[in-house]
Amino acid sequence: MRSEFDLIQHIKKKYALKRVGDDCAVLPKDSTTDLLMTADLLVEGVDFRLDWTTPELLGAKTLAVSLSDIAAMGGEPKSSMLSIGINEEVWNSDFVDRFYEGWFTLAKHHNVELVGGDVSRSPEHLFFDSIVVGEVAKGKAILRSGARPGDSIYVTGTLGGAAGGLMLLESGHRYSEVDSRRKNLIARQLRPVPRIAEGKILSETGFATAMIDISDGLSSDLHHLCDASEAGALLDFNSIPCDPDLNSISFTDDVRIEFAIGGGEDFELLFTSREKEFSAPNFPHVTRIGEITSSIGRVEIIGGEFDAYLPRKGFRHF
Amino acid sequence: MRSEFDLIQHIKKKYALKRVGDDCAVLPKDSTTDLLMTADLLVEGVDFRLDWTTPELLGAKTLAVSLSDIAAMGGEPKSSMLSIGINEEVWNSDFVDRFYEGWFTLAKHHNVELVGGDVSRSPEHLFFDSIVVGEVAKGKAILRSGARPGDSIYVTGTLGGAAGGLMLLESGHRYSEVDSRRKNLIARQLRPVPRIAEGKILSETGFATAMIDISDGLSSDLHHLCDASEAGALLDFNSIPCDPDLNSISFTDDVRIEFAIGGGEDFELLFTSREKEFSAPNFPHVTRIGEITSSIGRVEIIGGEFDAYLPRKGFRHF
Repeated sequence: MRSEFDLIQHIKKKYALKRVGDDCAVLPKDSTTDLLMTADLLVEGVDFRLDWTTPELLGAKTLAVSLSDIAAMGGEPKSSMLSIGINEEVWNSDFVDRFYEGWFTLAKHHNVELVGGDVSRSPEHLFFDSIVVGEVAKGKAILRSGARPGDSIYVTGTLGGAAGGLMLLESGHRYSEVDSRRKNLIARQLRPVPRIAEGKILSETGFATAMIDISDGLSSDLHHLCDASEAGALLDFNSIPCDPDLNSISFTDDVRIEFAIGGGEDFELLFTSREKEFSAPNFPHVTRIGEITSSIGRVEIIGGEFDAYLPRKGFRHF
Repeated sequence: MRSEFDLIQHIKKKYALKRVGDDCAVLPKDSTTDLLMTADLLVEGVDFRLDWTTPELLGAKTLAVSLSDIAAMGGEPKSSMLSIGINEEVWNSDFVDRFYEGWFTLAKHHNVELVGGDVSRSPEHLFFDSIVVGEVAKGKAILRSGARPGDSIYVTGTLGGAAGGLMLLESGHRYSEVDSRRKNLIARQLRPVPRIAEGKILSETGFATAMIDISDGLSSDLHHLCDASEAGALLDFNSIPCDPDLNSISFTDDVRIEFAIGGGEDFELLFTSREKEFSAPNFPHVTRIGEITSSIGRVEIIGGEFDAYLPRKGFRHF
């Protein structure tokens, strides 16, 4: 069965689309500024379950996933449209008001203005389409395609926490009932933090040559970056920054590294640079995890007991 | 139960939103141009049924409803994002390819470029979110709020055809099996024609003081326009341009006028003007159907055997 990535590549080629395939589309705005545009669907039963979260957290996450796409281009979010499909039972509850409350709390934090959207009845499952428009200095958007062999590969923060949180939720744990380390993991899944400030610094300093946010998983998203850059990557197993809260739980080493490499929704920034060391003020923890190679489409990981080509793994819809 | 219009008004007031509530949001682009943005959901079982249409027609309609919003501001469509939620059965058919084929055929006709969107699995019902970005000369977007008492009210083309087509579909008729007049009605429902060229002329000539497209129905959409303009309207019953193909079918006069006044999805332009006569080259049939009054929120219709206040009728999700 073809994946959604196959479909997008097919459509892109068939209709000669130039602006499809990065975290955001880049469109000219005026003489000094480019526009960034992104759309992200969240579907009940696929991306979320109502009994795992609160309407407020879900509203905030709906916006956060799109803000993360703006961050991955080095941009600043400005405007948003929100389309919601709601079934009658949920419509008749306080869900929608609480959902918007969570959405607007995050929007206010990032000075994002709601300018439109649509409201529809949905026969069963809820769904949300989050559209965010941002801005970036002309020509300064950080694409996936700018990595060159020899570039260092960096990642912000830590990885695998959101996947750990997802596994906890799937096995019946709930935020209010668990200890603080498990709370942290569940929060990483339910309350992602878009790296807007960090993305802006990377754009303004010109430090990053290519960037993507980790939504599908390190392995999958690094493959996307390598494909766009017509390059490969060599990762150092021992440098992958696993979420420290994963240690506290009875996960095996294999599971932890699987979460960090294959798990999605950490919404950290994965970027490349000509520079072999990273330093910028007011920037969170950054780790150099490997190097871009000329082996097109191959992502290899070495070190420890691990030496393998990473599959194009990660979350897929089809 | 509150309607979706109630929700939008509530959110608009609670969060002090300035750009919500017209057919498109208007955002500054550069010194000569404003951006227009709109999003429209189409949901299976609510807005369409797969056994009523073809994937190609559905793809084209998904884009057309948003192009109609750009037309209603007097703008020119430029870019689009398309988010689709597809269940596994449909994913494994040729539906998606044929849907995009229909979408791109209409997009090419209007020089609209696909720049992004999202693809998700949907557990059951299909849904589409159509996002279109357009442009209009700075300050020339035609809002709903510009009508003043004494302005004439005009409508392009004819009304009620799409509702007639919907009734035919609902009673089991299919396009391929009916006579040419019924085909015309079903086509009005399944293959709406956005009035882009007409909207642009109205913006460029400065003829229109306020405008909206008829998506929910004349009565409902005229109420929206009057609300935004803090005015009312007096319609002449005998001037309402009923779709001529409705005559051929055994619809009673009451049903025909109900379709023309209460039926949605004709996607004609409803606009007001200081001028009491309309003339512009290369413009389709336009009818003067009444006058704006100072009776805020009241839409009255007189003439024939009919003399009534029109309810805020039309298609509602909730």
